[in-house]
Amino acid sequence: MYDKTLAFWRANQDPFLEGLKEFLRIPSISTLPGNEVEMKRGAKFVADELKALGMDVSIVEGNANEHPLVYAEWLGATGKPTLIVYGHYDVQPPEPLEKWISPPFEPEVRKGVLYARGASDDKGQVYILVKVLEGYFKTTGKLPINIKVLIEGEEESSGEHVERFVRQNPKKLAADAVLVLDTGMYAPGRPTITTGLRGLICAEISCQGAKADLHSGNYGGVAPNAAIELAKIIAYVTTDSGNVRIPGFYDDIIKPTKLELKAWRRLPFNAEDFRRDVIGSPTLAGDKRFSVHQRIYARPTFEVNGISGGFSDEGFKTVIPAVANAKVSMRLAAGMNPDKVAASFERFIQSVTPDSVTCTVQILSKAPAVIADTGSPFVKAAAKAQSEVFKAETLYVRRGSSIPVAGTLQSVLSAPVILTGFTLPDCNMHAPNENLHLSNFYSGIEAIGLYLALLTE
Amino acid sequence: MYDKTLAFWRANQDPFLEGLKEFLRIPSISTLPGNEVEMKRGAKFVADELKALGMDVSIVEGNANEHPLVYAEWLGATGKPTLIVYGHYDVQPPEPLEKWISPPFEPEVRKGVLYARGASDDKGQVYILVKVLEGYFKTTGKLPINIKVLIEGEEESSGEHVERFVRQNPKKLAADAVLVLDTGMYAPGRPTITTGLRGLICAEISCQGAKADLHSGNYGGVAPNAAIELAKIIAYVTTDSGNVRIPGFYDDIIKPTKLELKAWRRLPFNAEDFRRDVIGSPTLAGDKRFSVHQRIYARPTFEVNGISGGFSDEGFKTVIPAVANAKVSMRLAAGMNPDKVAASFERFIQSVTPDSVTCTVQILSKAPAVIADTGSPFVKAAAKAQSEVFKAETLYVRRGSSIPVAGTLQSVLSAPVILTGFTLPDCNMHAPNENLHLSNFYSGIEAIGLYLALLTE
Repeated sequence: MYDKTLAFWRANQDPFLEGLKEFLRIPSISTLPGNEVEMKRGAKFVADELKALGMDVSIVEGNANEHPLVYAEWLGATGKPTLIVYGHYDVQPPEPLEKWISPPFEPEVRKGVLYARGASDDKGQVYILVKVLEGYFKTTGKLPINIKVLIEGEEESSGEHVERFVRQNPKKLAADAVLVLDTGMYAPGRPTITTGLRGLICAEISCQGAKADLHSGNYGGVAPNAAIELAKIIAYVTTDSGNVRIPGFYDDIIKPTKLELKAWRRLPFNAEDFRRDVIGSPTLAGDKRFSVHQRIYARPTFEVNGISGGFSDEGFKTVIPAVANAKVSMRLAAGMNPDKVAASFERFIQSVTPDSVTCTVQILSKAPAVIADTGSPFVKAAAKAQSEVFKAETLYVRRGSSIPVAGTLQSVLSAPVILTGFTLPDCNMHAPNENLHLSNFYSGIEAIGLYLALLTE
Repeated sequence: MYDKTLAFWRANQDPFLEGLKEFLRIPSISTLPGNEVEMKRGAKFVADELKALGMDVSIVEGNANEHPLVYAEWLGATGKPTLIVYGHYDVQPPEPLEKWISPPFEPEVRKGVLYARGASDDKGQVYILVKVLEGYFKTTGKLPINIKVLIEGEEESSGEHVERFVRQNPKKLAADAVLVLDTGMYAPGRPTITTGLRGLICAEISCQGAKADLHSGNYGGVAPNAAIELAKIIAYVTTDSGNVRIPGFYDDIIKPTKLELKAWRRLPFNAEDFRRDVIGSPTLAGDKRFSVHQRIYARPTFEVNGISGGFSDEGFKTVIPAVANAKVSMRLAAGMNPDKVAASFERFIQSVTPDSVTCTVQILSKAPAVIADTGSPFVKAAAKAQSEVFKAETLYVRRGSSIPVAGTLQSVLSAPVILTGFTLPDCNMHAPNENLHLSNFYSGIEAIGLYLALLTE
């Protein structure tokens, strides 16, 4: 029975790739205003694929300015467990466009690697799930367990729609476990379960000095420079080692366990190779009292994601900028309370704002960190399925990134979360030349396929 | 004789305005790459006007990437003094476009005020000169004194072409005095001679951390953030009171004389009105040990004119920026050596750059401050002509802005510089809604006209 399904997955790799390319051609950038048509196309693509399998599918529209989500279920496996699988069809903006070797929304395979925005984050992984289900339906007419599918369109933006949907539908979404297909492999050939994610606060700081941009000759010396004052505020948020001065920032952190710290020390990792090949900066940043893994997995950060003010086009304009803006974010470690941190951040920025300018702080989103239950049989089965397919021991790591809805699903459904996926460290998520190794795409289908089979035991 | 010319100026105000509007419609933005066609149109407009008067006119082409300048002369006033008059036909970029009430290159008169980019800086003043000359030629067939006209197209950019032209042609340009028509009136109804200008250094700082933008979740805690590091560098250049930490920055400043300080204290000025109506910021910035006039006229500054890095478009992108840039400039007080300051600035930026990023500093332009000889009869005649036309005492002030070529003309031609003009403090130079009061445009023609007549005495 399983052999027939496995054969189907292996025989259909080419059409699977073509289908994924079609999905990737849709520029479903959720943070781009006015992009509603492409967002609806993204949702419809997923819904149509699942409908074609005979699943019960609905496209759930949100409020104005929200993007639709896709919910599907098949509950025909009486007496078997129910798994809800989460993914997202929205993608990050592709800028800077000039750094892409092939255009972001024209998928191209080069040397066994598929390049496109969303290839790994997260369309490729959503499509892995769809093809797993297709294999079972087409070869057996059913699924080995009960499956609920929840694919949202706001993971890269507010995520408000799916948050509300989950909170309002605990019975409809009830499941024995939550599979979040939005993480990746620690290293090539090393299947990986993610046991923790950082939380995230996104915010915008806007500083205003003079009422309008002023001539730096006529007013330089008396007019406040919004760009300089914003720089001073930003500069003051962190110490030279990147530690954050916001009061109480580190108070509630739950430290990683000794077992976790030991596992992280055993990961195949060389800090100097990592610096040179992955980061590429003269030195690594951050607090040297903590290892690279600790800093990424279990310590909070403050980042400027974008800064702007004055005249930055080609040429030169001797203005004193009246306004300067920074888009900023904070990654939160396990234990940190996003509401508390956001409030302290706002107070802190106001407290360090000089008299000559006014600053507004807008909190755009807040999500707590997530910690998985590594003792759950659903986690153990995922590790086993992946070890068999990839023929390698499954690693347990945390990740520094954030999937806000994972925490919500875990708490609302009171179910263990399994975080896994098949991207690689060089997949350029959120950056130019995002990619997915085709071998991982195909093996990912087999690994998730085997996982569903193992859950029947 | 003079009455006939004066009558001509008064009778032709409407056609003069139409002619100026035509001039202002040319988007001669010198810092905009690829704008050669419009720059040539700007130069040709000026040259054609002067040719039509019967002057000997040449358009002087520069090197590749330089803009043409216009040189014209009429030397038929044997035994009379020779005045060389400087102005510029290039303008600042108009951005931010959305803040203009009427489009920057579609001149519009509202309530007696002409709005357009370049209306006051400096096309309106160049056109005043042209119409003065036209009045004399059309009513008397000649000019009262010998006139050389030098109108460049790079005042808002490098100014390299006119610098070289002046240095290479000291005999051709020889004159008894230099009239720089590129400053303005201290207050409405108060004619003004400018006795000093600040110097200017323009530069760009570029910081690079990681080799590419990185996901702030996956790499936050170890990847340097170029925007934060640039903010820290910028923040460190100035103290909270705006004083500059660059070593030696204040060493060579020539302090204003007691007479100047006394004159500045007597200017019709209220700091609180100035803060509220002109600057519009919560408080004024700068070193409170010095008066507002001292800070603008006689103290150096450091400004960020533009800052950029990461993702600043609409929406949000959780990247760690690999690169961040700042366009910066320094206004120099009298006595400061631009070469020495620029070199010290470069060393200083490198010395405060953290190990995790690399910074490059590019010096784009350098010009010293200028101090005028208030004892010169050419300066006194200018003050007298303006007092008569405006029926008010002429004020002597300095300006905080810079006209690099003024210093070069003064030193190469060994001639006194007269800096004057007819713009007002609310003319929005370098900002949206730049404007020129039509009453000053018309009175400016009469004042410069009378000045030429007075110089025959």
